[in-house]
Amino acid sequence: MSASLDLPAVTVLGLGPMGRSLAAAFLRAGLRTTVWNRTPGRDRELIAQGAAGAGSAEEAVAASGLTVVCVVDYDAADALLRPEPVTRALKGRTVVNLTADTPGRARDTSDWAAAHGIRYLEGAIMTPAPSIGTPEAVFLHSGPRALYDEHRAVLEALGGTHTHLGEEIGRAATFDIALLDIFWTAMAGYAHAVALARAEGVTAGELAPFAQGIGAILPPLFTRFAQDADDGTYSGAINPITSAASAMSHIIAVSESHGIDASVMRATAGLARRVIDLGHGRDGFIRVAEVLGRR
Amino acid sequence: MSASLDLPAVTVLGLGPMGRSLAAAFLRAGLRTTVWNRTPGRDRELIAQGAAGAGSAEEAVAASGLTVVCVVDYDAADALLRPEPVTRALKGRTVVNLTADTPGRARDTSDWAAAHGIRYLEGAIMTPAPSIGTPEAVFLHSGPRALYDEHRAVLEALGGTHTHLGEEIGRAATFDIALLDIFWTAMAGYAHAVALARAEGVTAGELAPFAQGIGAILPPLFTRFAQDADDGTYSGAINPITSAASAMSHIIAVSESHGIDASVMRATAGLARRVIDLGHGRDGFIRVAEVLGRR
Repeated sequence: MSASLDLPAVTVLGLGPMGRSLAAAFLRAGLRTTVWNRTPGRDRELIAQGAAGAGSAEEAVAASGLTVVCVVDYDAADALLRPEPVTRALKGRTVVNLTADTPGRARDTSDWAAAHGIRYLEGAIMTPAPSIGTPEAVFLHSGPRALYDEHRAVLEALGGTHTHLGEEIGRAATFDIALLDIFWTAMAGYAHAVALARAEGVTAGELAPFAQGIGAILPPLFTRFAQDADDGTYSGAINPITSAASAMSHIIAVSESHGIDASVMRATAGLARRVIDLGHGRDGFIRVAEVLGRR
Repeated sequence: MSASLDLPAVTVLGLGPMGRSLAAAFLRAGLRTTVWNRTPGRDRELIAQGAAGAGSAEEAVAASGLTVVCVVDYDAADALLRPEPVTRALKGRTVVNLTADTPGRARDTSDWAAAHGIRYLEGAIMTPAPSIGTPEAVFLHSGPRALYDEHRAVLEALGGTHTHLGEEIGRAATFDIALLDIFWTAMAGYAHAVALARAEGVTAGELAPFAQGIGAILPPLFTRFAQDADDGTYSGAINPITSAASAMSHIIAVSESHGIDASVMRATAGLARRVIDLGHGRDGFIRVAEVLGRR
């Protein structure tokens, strides 16, 4: 392993599973990589792989022009970045914050960075730690385009696809939050379906091939419904929301007959009911997107 | 169009969008097809295509050895099948009930059929009406295997894939309910993500390609988590439920800061919290399947 002559040095703050994967990918790409974690000891394996350790966060960020931060949330990121010695050491350098949190926190941190002469980019990692350094990794970025372009080569050393979503600093977090919303809600549906099938004597393994089939029809529907939502058409020609509501009431009835918590489906059915009560019963379910924010 | 010499006649009761698609597919396959609907007039187009009309439900079912029923729910199916003249006309004939409802209703109808000398199969249609007669259609069946085999050729005239899930009459409804549970819960997540993205200035169209990416990772995860659930491993090595709970709290916070209803995600986060409170915080989210039914 030799340090790249073309790529600048990089510091990784935060050595949880994701931070360690990021640092390992930088090392494999031949970058001079400095690592630091609040809890000591997490850097040992990376140092054995060629990373430089540091005695403090300020020493770590001073070692590179670019610092990548990936910790559990912005409270943890603030605890690393905002102590005065670290903030001072970061002046004139770039921070790429790959920590997941809300768009509001991203904007707040961007303001803090600007006030302290720190160049700042936001990012979100959409794939699990083992994907880092592989073609499967998916990264979203937002912030000043010129600054992104300046650090792009280093970021691309992490593998996978990188998309700059725009200059508005909150965009990476907005996409991250919206996509996790889809992911975790779908997983709640899956876990519930498994519980319900079991109660009726069907194993998760028996259900899985058919669940795969349902999963496969979602992506094209997401695209079609996005068009419906952006056009304001919300067409229910194929599947009116009244018919969805009928299916939902069956799901709730079967669940509760087995003593299975149906709170997620009850909330979903409540949204469908609201759309119907507003006189949109012939529309498709995606009309829900339009009424969710009505007070 | 000529009546097939190999295939028996078939009657379709219920001429909503799905019933009409079923009858049209039977006609296109060359079967002698009799149609009937409670509300008159719905049979006109099908009669123009070669279907036989009927003056009453009992006349319709008497015209064929096999009657396929597809109406809004079992209350509607009962209203068609259980009046005494219809029940009498069905004696010795077969009913394939493609109406969606609960496994319990399916079992009840099977008992009713047995008590009246009616041969009875259950089915579920997993794809929308326009898929009928195409390779995209997906049908699930349950009930006596020999009876299914007897009528299989007629059913396969509807196109797509047909799976016999087992002799237990409730299985088609169980799979149907579980799969719709996944589908509608995922759609609730998608509609919410669209609302949330909009509130942050991102259109559904901008989000859609990334939503597709999230949709594409679901099917393989369904299979992996099915194994986890059946093994009782619930591994959280890649993604512990505490980390999911943290993402959920961000989603709720951003939603509610915009006045967007977060009831579905609040219910989902409540399930994750319950798993964590039971001491399973290092497990994966699919552990939810195991605690949903605990009282």
